[in-house]
Amino acid sequence: MAYTTGPRNLITDVAGLRVGNAQDAALKSGTTVLSGDAPFVAGVHVMGGAPGTRETDLLAPDKSVAAVDALVLSGGSAFGLDACSGVTEALRARGRGLQLGAALIPLVPGAILFDLLNGGAKDWVQNPYADLGREAFEASDYDFALGSHGAGTGALAAMQKGGLGSASLVLSDGTTVGALVAANPVGSVTTPGERHFWAAPFEMDGELGGAGVDTQTGLCAAPASLKAEALFGTNATSTRANTTIAIVATDRALTKAQCHRLAVAAHDGIARAIVPAHTPSDGDLVFGVSTGAGEPASDMELAEIGHGAALCLSRAIARAVYEATPAEGDLLPCYRSL
Amino acid sequence: MAYTTGPRNLITDVAGLRVGNAQDAALKSGTTVLSGDAPFVAGVHVMGGAPGTRETDLLAPDKSVAAVDALVLSGGSAFGLDACSGVTEALRARGRGLQLGAALIPLVPGAILFDLLNGGAKDWVQNPYADLGREAFEASDYDFALGSHGAGTGALAAMQKGGLGSASLVLSDGTTVGALVAANPVGSVTTPGERHFWAAPFEMDGELGGAGVDTQTGLCAAPASLKAEALFGTNATSTRANTTIAIVATDRALTKAQCHRLAVAAHDGIARAIVPAHTPSDGDLVFGVSTGAGEPASDMELAEIGHGAALCLSRAIARAVYEATPAEGDLLPCYRSL
Repeated sequence: MAYTTGPRNLITDVAGLRVGNAQDAALKSGTTVLSGDAPFVAGVHVMGGAPGTRETDLLAPDKSVAAVDALVLSGGSAFGLDACSGVTEALRARGRGLQLGAALIPLVPGAILFDLLNGGAKDWVQNPYADLGREAFEASDYDFALGSHGAGTGALAAMQKGGLGSASLVLSDGTTVGALVAANPVGSVTTPGERHFWAAPFEMDGELGGAGVDTQTGLCAAPASLKAEALFGTNATSTRANTTIAIVATDRALTKAQCHRLAVAAHDGIARAIVPAHTPSDGDLVFGVSTGAGEPASDMELAEIGHGAALCLSRAIARAVYEATPAEGDLLPCYRSL
Repeated sequence: MAYTTGPRNLITDVAGLRVGNAQDAALKSGTTVLSGDAPFVAGVHVMGGAPGTRETDLLAPDKSVAAVDALVLSGGSAFGLDACSGVTEALRARGRGLQLGAALIPLVPGAILFDLLNGGAKDWVQNPYADLGREAFEASDYDFALGSHGAGTGALAAMQKGGLGSASLVLSDGTTVGALVAANPVGSVTTPGERHFWAAPFEMDGELGGAGVDTQTGLCAAPASLKAEALFGTNATSTRANTTIAIVATDRALTKAQCHRLAVAAHDGIARAIVPAHTPSDGDLVFGVSTGAGEPASDMELAEIGHGAALCLSRAIARAVYEATPAEGDLLPCYRSL
């Protein structure tokens, strides 16, 4: 049975979710926040070798917290984790969070990507990410910008600018699945020649520009990374400056353990859209989210939802790069300038 | 820089490793054993929802065992774990294992796939897998058969027979990487129409028959599985009867933690060759192995080795299906019969 995209082709096609972006052009960085109309169930699976995270331990299926209030994807490397602080405080101001007696504790797991060497002005005195987090949360809506916005503002892929991407699918039983990603990987999202996306087999409705599938075989060696050269020079001994961070979500009810499994399955979307992926120098991780109520999904339903999430994430990664736009001081070209 | 396949295009291109198969045609099942000329460092990463394993906990980077003697991939579901017993005893008979005082303890982690409903004679009284394990170990050599042999004997993919696959690569610095897999997944290794392998972009030297890359886009819904219908009927409520189990190996020195990271990276090879993969009904896992001595690899070397391992595993999965051959009582056709 054929799937269709949701009406917006965004993660916000999943009922109960909104997304907001905030960015600073001079900083060449920003933050993206996913929040729920109500607290939502979530899990996480980390597969990269260099993750940067906050409040992810409470997402393990055996931990007590049942639901969280928001998730943050941010630029800024370790400094960007302060975006969660801004969102946490903004939620408290709205009376949102886990109520423990008189105390209100908003729960805001987050993850960062590395964009500290991308040419932006990084010499701030006061950490700007708490404000960016607050601003992104306040901007949350059903529609939001892709490409060089939010957490994708300063992102770079191996051969061109990265960015913020999203995509959605409506499965044959009416379940909606969506993905949101800030793509800043070591690997390349395009095959050699930089015209065809690795994710092209999954493209829907021309969302990636319709360049189609590369018919080459024997695609084995990874091409020299323009990013690595721009950041570290031609004889770099380290490229630990990357990461693809993502959220996949569904409106079908899932347990916390099922959200973990959803996140695991969605990593296949990273593998199919980026080559290589999950390297020691990527902090690749996926949050899995359910906003659904009622009886949790069966194994077979979860398998299809996980498959849909992987498809959405592959498409969202390619869209992140496809939608990127040029800005002053960029180190790499945009896909559509090539 | 271009990579080449190793001389055999098998995991045994990695120095110090041999592979042996044993199978029973009536049982429609079998066992494959990878053993080392000397004990080797190993890790494992489990990503499927329905794994079947033995001695995998000792592979965690914090556990005390430094090296293992062999790894087993077997059919037989939970019963197939007895193959490890046969290999363990055969190793003891050769004076191999971890010496603790007068005690000799061969260490043989293993994993199984589900082939209990594949039409074979499963009404044995004495578990046959210990003997199959012993026999496979005794048959170990640098050359071994692919397709419907060893652990791949009774394997089924979604649309055609699965099997045993292997492939290798020599990286630009001379490091050799190889993969060995028994492919029995929920998902399909071919795109709709069953002519083009998902792994086709990575095919080398015509190893997959040269059908090339499918140029379709919008490939989103998983086609109805012939396997699920053959095993459970048209209205199956469960398909928990699958699994892709694999080993990737390199001759470059890696720590135990790096072998774990190698296994993580290699899972991308499953994601790219099988759609969908890592479902709740797959026990998908990858062992990562190093036979190298000396200074362990750097992060950048490990990234390239992990990339190579993912490429080898994608190719090995498609080869498993490409090399499958018909046998009496088969439930599904072979790729080359289609």
